[in-house]
Amino acid sequence: MAVSFAARLNARISNLDTRVCLGLDPRPVLHASTHPDAHDGDPARVARSVVGYFRAIIESTSDLVACYKPQVAFFEALGIPGLIALAQLQADIRELGVPLLTDAKRGDMDTTAEAYAQAWLADGVFATDALTVNPYLGTGSLVPFSDRALQEGRGLFILVRTSNAGGEEFQELRDAGGTAVFEHVADMVNRFGEEAALLGATDPAGYSHAGAVVGATLPVNVIAGLRRRMPRAIFLMPGYGAQGGDSAAAAAAFDEHGFGAVLSASRSLTYFDFDVADHAGQARAATLAMRDELNAAIAARHA
Amino acid sequence: MAVSFAARLNARISNLDTRVCLGLDPRPVLHASTHPDAHDGDPARVARSVVGYFRAIIESTSDLVACYKPQVAFFEALGIPGLIALAQLQADIRELGVPLLTDAKRGDMDTTAEAYAQAWLADGVFATDALTVNPYLGTGSLVPFSDRALQEGRGLFILVRTSNAGGEEFQELRDAGGTAVFEHVADMVNRFGEEAALLGATDPAGYSHAGAVVGATLPVNVIAGLRRRMPRAIFLMPGYGAQGGDSAAAAAAFDEHGFGAVLSASRSLTYFDFDVADHAGQARAATLAMRDELNAAIAARHA
Repeated sequence: MAVSFAARLNARISNLDTRVCLGLDPRPVLHASTHPDAHDGDPARVARSVVGYFRAIIESTSDLVACYKPQVAFFEALGIPGLIALAQLQADIRELGVPLLTDAKRGDMDTTAEAYAQAWLADGVFATDALTVNPYLGTGSLVPFSDRALQEGRGLFILVRTSNAGGEEFQELRDAGGTAVFEHVADMVNRFGEEAALLGATDPAGYSHAGAVVGATLPVNVIAGLRRRMPRAIFLMPGYGAQGGDSAAAAAAFDEHGFGAVLSASRSLTYFDFDVADHAGQARAATLAMRDELNAAIAARHA
Repeated sequence: MAVSFAARLNARISNLDTRVCLGLDPRPVLHASTHPDAHDGDPARVARSVVGYFRAIIESTSDLVACYKPQVAFFEALGIPGLIALAQLQADIRELGVPLLTDAKRGDMDTTAEAYAQAWLADGVFATDALTVNPYLGTGSLVPFSDRALQEGRGLFILVRTSNAGGEEFQELRDAGGTAVFEHVADMVNRFGEEAALLGATDPAGYSHAGAVVGATLPVNVIAGLRRRMPRAIFLMPGYGAQGGDSAAAAAAFDEHGFGAVLSASRSLTYFDFDVADHAGQARAATLAMRDELNAAIAARHA
């Protein structure tokens, strides 16, 4: 069996002391004025500008991040050249050996789920080390992703409790016994993790291929409760930065060894003033600040 | 305002007396032996074979279907050439003037949802007349899709109660008042529809841009209940054929004028014996049979 995604991610967390997941969400309209191709409307040139812009950021930050997370929506919005740009950046990241977590929120049933798993979790142009998926269709709809991830040493991040305002609308509906939808989803994530443990497919720290998306914007007691509910799940925590997530609350997602989660930020680490000359240097400074703030919050929690 | 998707779809239902949504789910391994390129492993040739295979089906069935529904997962699994094949088939279908409903089950928050809406519901290489979306992130996450669909005269199909075995796991969790998650989602779909009605954006039969995915595999009373709960939603009903859906139950989704839903089938209308010589002719015969069986079931229900 290949070295698992959890093992690779935790090795980086341990070796580099970073829990930052840097999100690549290309918004060409925000590229600095030093990147005129991003603004000229030609799809191939815009896509090339995106590749150049993020390659510079990857080069300047690769020793500071636990993983990179391209958001597929922004590449799809750029059409075929955008998807080629995605594939190029994915290949760059994998070549560097940095864990690659692709945010696609895919989900469908049966053989359709198998096709998505084939697209993202097998060798191929969009191959990624881990993928975000949506649980609305139930456990069975995620089995093809889980099976493929286990076989290939890759990872899944299942949406549990998202960071967006309004995420509670369906996720916090509670059954007659008081258990919320997102808690039922968390229990499913944990079952995938326990099955991996029975197969001996967890990493030395006990984490499995089945991770969870848990918003960094949630109250600390909710995050701590989910940590206990899914002891074998690595959390992907969006919402830090632009969405107002708090590193002190997010610290509750980590175990006493500093494992158990990555915090993602995208715009705050990659887009700056329109006339900034050195966006890659700014990205490095912002990533460093986030890494250190988060590490301090984790140290404070376990002090 | 452009002629709405609902108006275009209902005009076809009325003019051609068909409620069949023909699904394009390329599985090159199932292409007949008369399509050797599908089996040779070269991505560009496989994708070209997919285009040829489905173009022949589109030519042979375009007077028998209410709409076509490509499933994006199967194209993504074929990489960049697969996505180019998708764009080509989408362009063919739109050129013919047949409503195009793309099954991508996208969903994300805020500006990410806007990026997906930009990719699929605006002009561009993947432009479609309607798109399936996932509600797990709540009403707010679907607003960018809804706004874009209204502006552009396009449609949305929001997952409400899916056809897959196990779809009930989270969708049928019930709150203390006895209302299931999928019923809360249905109420949201209906709110989008009511908002469209206030804007004068419903079609002459009263249907809006906000449709619902409702499995044809559900019991007739559940389908009838959802029909009452979402009077302005066109239903996309998968599960007929391969998944065992029943046309008599599905008939409950239609109003007394024969509007209100389309039934989709993919594999049963597009893949046949491996040594079949005329797959397009077989597709025509299978589509005709499905059209007539469904129409008879609707006539029986309203008799």
